[in-house]
Amino acid sequence: MENDNKHTWKTKLHEIIYEADTRAGKLFDIILLIAILASIVLVMLESISSFDEKYHAFLNVSEWVITILFTIEYIVRIITVNKPIKYITSFYGIVDLLSTIPKYLSLFFVGSQALVALRALRLLRIFRILKLARYLGASNQLASAIKASRAKISVFLFAVIIASVIFGTIMYLVEGADSGFTNIPKSVYWCIVTLTTVGFGDIAPVTPLGQFIAAVIMVMGYGIIAVPTGIVSAEYTKATNSKDKITKEEETQLKTVTLNTQCCANCLAVKHQDGAEFCHKCGCKLHYD
Amino acid sequence: MENDNKHTWKTKLHEIIYEADTRAGKLFDIILLIAILASIVLVMLESISSFDEKYHAFLNVSEWVITILFTIEYIVRIITVNKPIKYITSFYGIVDLLSTIPKYLSLFFVGSQALVALRALRLLRIFRILKLARYLGASNQLASAIKASRAKISVFLFAVIIASVIFGTIMYLVEGADSGFTNIPKSVYWCIVTLTTVGFGDIAPVTPLGQFIAAVIMVMGYGIIAVPTGIVSAEYTKATNSKDKITKEEETQLKTVTLNTQCCANCLAVKHQDGAEFCHKCGCKLHYD
Amino acid sequence: MENDNKHTWKTKLHEIIYEADTRAGKLFDIILLIAILASIVLVMLESISSFDEKYHAFLNVSEWVITILFTIEYIVRIITVNKPIKYITSFYGIVDLLSTIPKYLSLFFVGSQALVALRALRLLRIFRILKLARYLGASNQLASAIKASRAKISVFLFAVIIASVIFGTIMYLVEGADSGFTNIPKSVYWCIVTLTTVGFGDIAPVTPLGQFIAAVIMVMGYGIIAVPTGIVSAEYTKATNSKDKITKEEETQLKTVTLNTQCCANCLAVKHQDGAEFCHKCGCKLHYD
Amino acid sequence: MENDNKHTWKTKLHEIIYEADTRAGKLFDIILLIAILASIVLVMLESISSFDEKYHAFLNVSEWVITILFTIEYIVRIITVNKPIKYITSFYGIVDLLSTIPKYLSLFFVGSQALVALRALRLLRIFRILKLARYLGASNQLASAIKASRAKISVFLFAVIIASVIFGTIMYLVEGADSGFTNIPKSVYWCIVTLTTVGFGDIAPVTPLGQFIAAVIMVMGYGIIAVPTGIVSAEYTKATNSKDKITKEEETQLKTVTLNTQCCANCLAVKHQDGAEFCHKCGCKLHYD
Repeated sequence: MENDNKHTWKTKLHEIIYEADTRAGKLFDIILLIAILASIVLVMLESISSFDEKYHAFLNVSEWVITILFTIEYIVRIITVNKPIKYITSFYGIVDLLSTIPKYLSLFFVGSQALVALRALRLLRIFRILKLARYLGASNQLASAIKASRAKISVFLFAVIIASVIFGTIMYLVEGADSGFTNIPKSVYWCIVTLTTVGFGDIAPVTPLGQFIAAVIMVMGYGIIAVPTGIVSAEYTKATNSKDKITKEEETQLKTVTLNTQCCANCLAVKHQDGAEFCHKCGCKLHYD
Repeated sequence: MENDNKHTWKTKLHEIIYEADTRAGKLFDIILLIAILASIVLVMLESISSFDEKYHAFLNVSEWVITILFTIEYIVRIITVNKPIKYITSFYGIVDLLSTIPKYLSLFFVGSQALVALRALRLLRIFRILKLARYLGASNQLASAIKASRAKISVFLFAVIIASVIFGTIMYLVEGADSGFTNIPKSVYWCIVTLTTVGFGDIAPVTPLGQFIAAVIMVMGYGIIAVPTGIVSAEYTKATNSKDKITKEEETQLKTVTLNTQCCANCLAVKHQDGAEFCHKCGCKLHYD
Repeated sequence: MENDNKHTWKTKLHEIIYEADTRAGKLFDIILLIAILASIVLVMLESISSFDEKYHAFLNVSEWVITILFTIEYIVRIITVNKPIKYITSFYGIVDLLSTIPKYLSLFFVGSQALVALRALRLLRIFRILKLARYLGASNQLASAIKASRAKISVFLFAVIIASVIFGTIMYLVEGADSGFTNIPKSVYWCIVTLTTVGFGDIAPVTPLGQFIAAVIMVMGYGIIAVPTGIVSAEYTKATNSKDKITKEEETQLKTVTLNTQCCANCLAVKHQDGAEFCHKCGCKLHYD
Repeated sequence: MENDNKHTWKTKLHEIIYEADTRAGKLFDIILLIAILASIVLVMLESISSFDEKYHAFLNVSEWVITILFTIEYIVRIITVNKPIKYITSFYGIVDLLSTIPKYLSLFFVGSQALVALRALRLLRIFRILKLARYLGASNQLASAIKASRAKISVFLFAVIIASVIFGTIMYLVEGADSGFTNIPKSVYWCIVTLTTVGFGDIAPVTPLGQFIAAVIMVMGYGIIAVPTGIVSAEYTKATNSKDKITKEEETQLKTVTLNTQCCANCLAVKHQDGAEFCHKCGCKLHYD
């Protein structure tokens, strides 16, 4: 009897946490959403030193409140799920753990010399934002379009990298250290900045030849940005059309005459209308097995 | 009789202001268009301090002329419309009011200490530009394409923001305050600047590792710009094709043989040509109810 | 007899200059092409002060040679064409004149005070480059795609400008003169720089709120760049498909049974196969008029 | 007998080097891949002066190891291939040679005055990266889409260059040397930087008129980026659809009734179903020759 009670209690909690059909489930989701966004805002505010100095106590308390909330959520998720190991080792399970642990670790690593390592650990909480991905309406067509074009875009990006390495090396030769092209990796970095039309301007060609090559790279980058766009565009069009087409085809088949592979026993004529009982050539009865 | 006269007078004004079929209506529209553009130019010129100092009197008079014109327009619109409350609370009604009011408020808030607040109020007039949207030829296909892809683009932009928050935090860790990445919000801002291929260059990575991550962000941004383009492209193609297809389908139905669900009373054969009176299998007369 | 001779001579020259079928015509085109490119290179080299100082004499002589060549071409074009006025007032006629005249004017306006005006006139020769457009293979599909989408792109760009004016004004209010946003036109300029993902970085937001709004503008710009691309993409697809479709439709009509609007005189049955001579309902002869 | 042995040995090596079906062939490919990537990393590390100073000996030895490996590969490729001359003069043959030679040349050109020339030769090894192109999965649809749109994109890029030259000249006139527009080639360079939405910001317009023209160029660039994208998108859609369509058409032809050009000898009726033996008009036997 008690086991039954416990089961009901577990099932109910499972429904609240993992589903969003009930009123309690929806409320839980909204609270979690607010907690995630609040924790990200906290991480950001903490990084602003002037803000951190003023409101350190407030930030610390808020951090603890949210950390305890996430800890409770993590434990309840483990309890209510049927296969806890599967949840713990899943992507969201790891994200949930990583976003809870840093604050507890800060208790053990106190002291000025551990501050740098701590800063990094604190920032792990930023991965809580990935929890938001749960609320992303799974737009299947979009996902399948990206999936279908992933391989082709990879080939394309690989080509972009090869071009960047070659042009980066040429620019290193042409411009040299005086213009900021101090070594090849930096030149390749500049080339990627230019080819992707970002263009920071922290490094920029100074010599006429360098500017000419830069112009070539830019026009090239402007021309080839069309390639991945074309790929996704075509794949997405296909993905959205395929469903429409299937429905339309079924409809079409109802309306047009389809021919079967039946062969007349009398005159060996083929291509009879589907369901025809008499041969359209000799008028004899067709025999279906 | 007078009521009738008034009615005619109101109807006529309504025709001039809200419609553009009559000669007077067209003239009104052109004058309003010029007045809007002139008022925007005035706001811009006023913000240039060197210009404002020289021609302050001229700018002030011009402002009053345009403000009075817009006030008359606003009052006449309220009088001539059938449901004044609906107009006043509508989007364009609020824009019309907001673009008229600041100049009158400047009479009450005179004095050096009120100048800053006044400056902000003056700029509300910039919303007059939204009146120009009335003249935008409603390109329905474009609007429906954007509407259809709005949800998908939102999901996509949300993903961009999540990526920016994570990469911004990583860059804050890698580069630190010395390179200009003073806090996480600033790093996230830099990440958005980079991912959208804008690339101001006011903040730029300095360390090799930072530049490597920046290169990854850029190539990623270059690859994913294809996604919204593909979506709009596909949706727009669908929007423009759908109308063509409907016409073509109607035409097709006229030309191809369609089959009905009539069943022959004699041989139980189905799939007869629409309107056929004799069974194509046994040659018996078909009976329609 | 002389008139005839002259006519032949004119016709021959016309063939060489305006057509490219004969050997002489092709040679003329190639020489003209080289002359145009050379003249543009000359204008560019002249603008480099260090180069101009060294090789002033060479540049001057080259200029005169090319100017005389273009003058001869211009005169011959007028003589050989049937309607000289039409040529002179045509686009290319004006370009031809504008690219010849500046050098002659430099003879009359000598003196240090006329140098600035002269510099501007010299640069008119850059329009010779538009002559090259004559050699552009008229890619009709591309042109028709751009033509078809021109109106929609204009609406779109108008919306971009409205957004720039509003966001530019907001940024002027938020950032102010200290960050470089000295007046509204400059802020609008910055907003266009950002929205189009160019991002010079000569002006950049400094305040957190300004950077937040800038981030919104950038993500918006990143999202809406998809719109014109989608339009051109769809229009171009239509332009290239339309020709294919027409050919395919003709082929299809040959193969599928088409029904006519003939009405049986005996049983009033319609939907007869095109060219059928007997009614498919009552078997009576059909009478075509 | 020995000849046979040698033949087998050559065939086996050919299989290993040029193919990837056998286990040894796959292993060879993986080792080569690692060697190529290692050699590129070495070239990059060498260019970082601080790294080169510290680990010069290690870099030198590694270079020699890889150079000898590539030399062996080059020689074996020549031996095992049937037409050595064809391989040597092929694109990959030249790349293979160019990536091996510089290190050997460094033995002959030792001395401080030859260092600059040597630096350039060393960098030729970067072309080894093109060997990686061998491993690019030949995405035929992508290649054919680019091939099909190459001509149109060239026309488009040519138009972009013409626009850049004209606008660059105008900006040179408007802004002048004080704003960094020191000569026309530099202005054209700036114009390409702007039109392609790269926007370094090393040169930026300062005068209001210059900023206005810059805004026009940017909006133009933003609008026309759609053109190449639209082209590739449409061509790629065609390329991917064409294969699907062919399969679908074959399927369709099996199901729909096709008409032949047979003419009835009795009643001269045409448009008979393919393979029909009796006229659908007069019921007479059709005679095929």
